[in-house]
Amino acid sequence: MNKTLIIGASGQIGQMVTTALAETDQPVRALVRDKTKLEPIAGSQLEIMEADLEGDFSAAFDGMSNVIFCAGSGGTTGADKTLLIDLWAAKKAVDYAKKQSVKKFVMVSSMGVDDPDAIGGDIKPYLVAKHMADQYLMESGVPYTLVRPGPLTNDEGQGKITIKRPAHVDEMSISREDVAKSLLFILTKEGLDSKIFELFNGTYEVENVLV
Amino acid sequence: MNKTLIIGASGQIGQMVTTALAETDQPVRALVRDKTKLEPIAGSQLEIMEADLEGDFSAAFDGMSNVIFCAGSGGTTGADKTLLIDLWAAKKAVDYAKKQSVKKFVMVSSMGVDDPDAIGGDIKPYLVAKHMADQYLMESGVPYTLVRPGPLTNDEGQGKITIKRPAHVDEMSISREDVAKSLLFILTKEGLDSKIFELFNGTYEVENVLV
Repeated sequence: MNKTLIIGASGQIGQMVTTALAETDQPVRALVRDKTKLEPIAGSQLEIMEADLEGDFSAAFDGMSNVIFCAGSGGTTGADKTLLIDLWAAKKAVDYAKKQSVKKFVMVSSMGVDDPDAIGGDIKPYLVAKHMADQYLMESGVPYTLVRPGPLTNDEGQGKITIKRPAHVDEMSISREDVAKSLLFILTKEGLDSKIFELFNGTYEVENVLV
Repeated sequence: MNKTLIIGASGQIGQMVTTALAETDQPVRALVRDKTKLEPIAGSQLEIMEADLEGDFSAAFDGMSNVIFCAGSGGTTGADKTLLIDLWAAKKAVDYAKKQSVKKFVMVSSMGVDDPDAIGGDIKPYLVAKHMADQYLMESGVPYTLVRPGPLTNDEGQGKITIKRPAHVDEMSISREDVAKSLLFILTKEGLDSKIFELFNGTYEVENVLV
């Protein structure tokens, strides 16, 4: 049976994914810095493990077949944390996943990470860090799917998305709920190895778009 | 004839290397953000080119066979600049070098870059950025030599070094002059591809150590 490790399980998207997975019959291990943050959703299939992503968190990978990496700053913390978490913890997660022969590594990345120079501005250092982390995963040999959502909102999820980048900036957002729904779909779907999806609010069902 | 591009030519080590190379009969192109900084050492073999390392500086590579990358913050600027220069500009320099089929890329890195977790502390984000840049170069296919000096001093160069990491932290320093001398030696010496040298003040002649 698949066992899924969620890295960054107390973040907003992390909690949505963890909550949904905890309601299935699949074993789930939620990695957090502070256990109390996940107490409200603790369930019988949910194992909550504390670890510091700035240290050695290899033990979290024992017995895991799937990994979702949704830890990170989203570009709002200092660039030092961007280097330590978004880049270095991601790099170490890939190394641990490789050692564990993980079958599926789903990385939550960001729109624009493919070409940081094209976007520029204050977000560029963050995009650089994510670019290098994504690149490291892509060349690691670990089976991966990259998810690169546009600007995140707290709107209610519609379950409808697009992977075509919209022409106008103000159409590029996506709700965290729809990102979480997409991650859950990718986790269960075969054939999405080596795929890179930008994600935006759209008009198509997740299962028809992520192919 | 070898043509050498020096990226970060107005930095302390960059100026030493540029000055020494400008006195040879080899063509040298010094890349700087601000031309006036190198006016004191302008010479007939020295071409000074202005470019912003945060932009597209590919034109600097035209016709170059050797590259020395000694741009960077040394860990004292903000982590956003560490991401933009020490990591991203280095990554782009490797891409440009590859396109130009450069024969030798000498990267000035830092002691401890091989294992940022082992050193930790305030310098760790910087070591992470340099680690990923070095790794990118190593996997690029561009012939490279990595130079990883200990803490830099402005002491007069002795021309004597060691590549064995000393047991005690207070013996790990090296003068910028001796780093520059080592870089110049590596530039002219065959057979140093894929070598990684940590550098410290020592008791051995540069040419006997860097083999």
